[in-house]
Amino acid sequence: MNNLKSYIKNNKTRFIDELIELLKIPSISADASYKNDVLKTADAVKEALNKAGCDKVEICETPGYPIVYGEKIIDPKLPTILVYGHYDVQPADPLELWDSPPFEPIIKKTEIHPEGAIFARGACDDKGQMYMHVKALEFMTSTNQLPCNVKFMIEGEEEVGSESLGWFVKRNHEKLANNIILISDTGMIANDIPSITTGLRGLSYVEVEVTGPNRDLHSGLYGGAVANPINILTKMIASLHDENNHITIPGFYDKVEELSSDERAEMAKAPFSLDAYKKALDIDEVYGEKGYTTNERNSIRPTLDVNGIWGGYTGEGAKTVIASQAFAKISMRLVPNQDWKEITDLFKTHFESIAPKSVKVKVTPHHGGQGYVTPIDTIGYKAASKAYQDTFGKTPIPQRSGGSIPIVSLFEDELKSKTILMGFGLNSDAIHSPNEHFGIFNYLKGIETIPLFYNYFTELSKQ
Amino acid sequence: MNNLKSYIKNNKTRFIDELIELLKIPSISADASYKNDVLKTADAVKEALNKAGCDKVEICETPGYPIVYGEKIIDPKLPTILVYGHYDVQPADPLELWDSPPFEPIIKKTEIHPEGAIFARGACDDKGQMYMHVKALEFMTSTNQLPCNVKFMIEGEEEVGSESLGWFVKRNHEKLANNIILISDTGMIANDIPSITTGLRGLSYVEVEVTGPNRDLHSGLYGGAVANPINILTKMIASLHDENNHITIPGFYDKVEELSSDERAEMAKAPFSLDAYKKALDIDEVYGEKGYTTNERNSIRPTLDVNGIWGGYTGEGAKTVIASQAFAKISMRLVPNQDWKEITDLFKTHFESIAPKSVKVKVTPHHGGQGYVTPIDTIGYKAASKAYQDTFGKTPIPQRSGGSIPIVSLFEDELKSKTILMGFGLNSDAIHSPNEHFGIFNYLKGIETIPLFYNYFTELSKQ
Repeated sequence: MNNLKSYIKNNKTRFIDELIELLKIPSISADASYKNDVLKTADAVKEALNKAGCDKVEICETPGYPIVYGEKIIDPKLPTILVYGHYDVQPADPLELWDSPPFEPIIKKTEIHPEGAIFARGACDDKGQMYMHVKALEFMTSTNQLPCNVKFMIEGEEEVGSESLGWFVKRNHEKLANNIILISDTGMIANDIPSITTGLRGLSYVEVEVTGPNRDLHSGLYGGAVANPINILTKMIASLHDENNHITIPGFYDKVEELSSDERAEMAKAPFSLDAYKKALDIDEVYGEKGYTTNERNSIRPTLDVNGIWGGYTGEGAKTVIASQAFAKISMRLVPNQDWKEITDLFKTHFESIAPKSVKVKVTPHHGGQGYVTPIDTIGYKAASKAYQDTFGKTPIPQRSGGSIPIVSLFEDELKSKTILMGFGLNSDAIHSPNEHFGIFNYLKGIETIPLFYNYFTELSKQ
Repeated sequence: MNNLKSYIKNNKTRFIDELIELLKIPSISADASYKNDVLKTADAVKEALNKAGCDKVEICETPGYPIVYGEKIIDPKLPTILVYGHYDVQPADPLELWDSPPFEPIIKKTEIHPEGAIFARGACDDKGQMYMHVKALEFMTSTNQLPCNVKFMIEGEEEVGSESLGWFVKRNHEKLANNIILISDTGMIANDIPSITTGLRGLSYVEVEVTGPNRDLHSGLYGGAVANPINILTKMIASLHDENNHITIPGFYDKVEELSSDERAEMAKAPFSLDAYKKALDIDEVYGEKGYTTNERNSIRPTLDVNGIWGGYTGEGAKTVIASQAFAKISMRLVPNQDWKEITDLFKTHFESIAPKSVKVKVTPHHGGQGYVTPIDTIGYKAASKAYQDTFGKTPIPQRSGGSIPIVSLFEDELKSKTILMGFGLNSDAIHSPNEHFGIFNYLKGIETIPLFYNYFTELSKQ
């Protein structure tokens, strides 16, 4: 690629200004009162793709928010890269914890981002990371260096479950046909430690309800003689982990992919400071499954976490009540080969089986998704690795993420293609939290690395 | 006593009407917006005591709501009975579960109360039961048959902890001097099975807080690697009972009064249908400490119940969050010889000791009180027993209640006198719940039984 660095340098201010304009629109998909803003953002993305050099850009209607589709096909015989991203953002509350308004982007320097970072909801997740791809395309088309075909599919419901995306993908196999899918919606280890996400965990999310007596009871008159649904729920949840923090649901680990000691040794090379980790969270000790390191526990191992629990009297002061019911929301992060629907069934069967006869138990599955692993011996991974090598001067570390992007396995199932997760955000960028931000260094490095990926992927595809 | 039955028969309608007027005033002590109504109720009680024949009636100011004091001293050499009751009521919510407005009393017949019951908040607890004593006094003074001295102490903060009562009692030993304290604020087994409450459980109420990471975390990025405060809290709470439902806090049972097998055999004679009990609560099985019956579990054995629990995301749908904190309200019902302050300390020490290093734990004691047991070989108990024998035609069964009335042990400590708990309510009267009611049979039986107690107590005191 010629003039890549100079193009970015000359257009840096405009790149930042354009992203800031996009960040000003509060495209909160979870809140219907922002509907017009979500639709306005889809229009803005359409316009940006047009300006960046796409030949054909469409707002594709779905049962929910539209998907912005764009393409530039230079030669059907060349490889095609499908870029996926999303233009919707998480809700911004709690607003009082933001240092500046979430939809009035400002640039501030931080310890981790000495060159400055853009603070706004969606700055990193995913408007900033999505827009890197738009600007990378602009560079390649305006300098006439696009080496392959490109398609964009930018959705507006990622933060609420991507339901319309599944609907759209299933109906548009031909339109979306590609050789590789490229997503920037994950992170990397540090600005001087590039990494590529090679794994995502699956998810099974359930809600449980324990019912005891048919009404709230006086804890003096009935206490000790009747099963207290809260006590029972705590006992049932506690029993889901053994003393080594293994999950006790029969069959839960049956299909878990076990990594070889070589693979684990490779993972252990990733730079990690347990002290810094504990300090950042203000905890004295980490906690988790015996026999695994912190980085293994939150990436290659499945988990079971209570995300919410409630029952009885939770107001000020004291009330001596035995509640009729107690509730919890429980999610399990899953690893490759665990099927989320099967795990959901195992959970339901087990949880119902451990309830004492003195209560009734109801398990309601919420949603879920499969895990995903990118093999690192593919040309997609190799092309990404070489691109990072060029821009960061270091070979990126393959890294499994503990998070879940269920649509990645949907893409594999429906479109039969692999996904490369080239994330440029940092864990400290506070996505989904107040004061979300995205480093200018990261934004520009993304714009620089992406065209190189196009080049290497096209080259390697020819071999 | 002459003309007792006929007096009640002739004045029945007026007795009911007067109580209904009292029940119309919403004297909810927990809600400051009802302050005027609480004070208005104190005035109404004062007027009622005046009319019933007390010589001296006062509204005694306290740091909180006033105490209505009244007395009729006919001869200082005769025994003195101190009647305790309360004129405040529980909040009425949830209002939507009431079949008729809580402060618009109506009379309805029920299966258990074929003669009709008055439905209103406070009907049984405690306006109805307190007013029985006022009307019993009216009978004795108007027919010139009061055999001894009587004092009334009716408070307005029973439903919020009786704090001002303690303050008042400590400052008025002489004014309140008595030979026996008489309270109707408990229940009896059934309308054809009279019983006298001979025991009350003590109480220790605490709130616990478990803190993990310094902020809510993404359960994908951190799940499995960091202690989840909700999971930890469920584990800690679950561990407080062993597989036999014994409480595991070291030292918890050290001072528990163990009943002899004779005493337990005596208790077991009380009529009780486990099937009816389970049916009324819509449960398949009871649940509790191994080795004890249902009636023992809720009276002579201590308990540990979670009264409320909360943490994490509890709204609609799903949020994959690891909460920074989790909370529970926990109460322990205590039996004779267990000291509530000592038990609170044992709980705190133990609960803090079982927390893993990866979380911080805070235990905040709320309040508590000592348990109480009335010996049945006293003249007070014997007088009550004879009175019931006369009015019900059956010897009443001595019965330990699982509930707590902490002021009873305060009375013993401060005034050095025993308390007789002559309750005429039924467990099914829904005190503290929607559709509270009090049977007209029970109301009138109370008015009939109380003067006989005065007589027998005076007689037996002379021997």
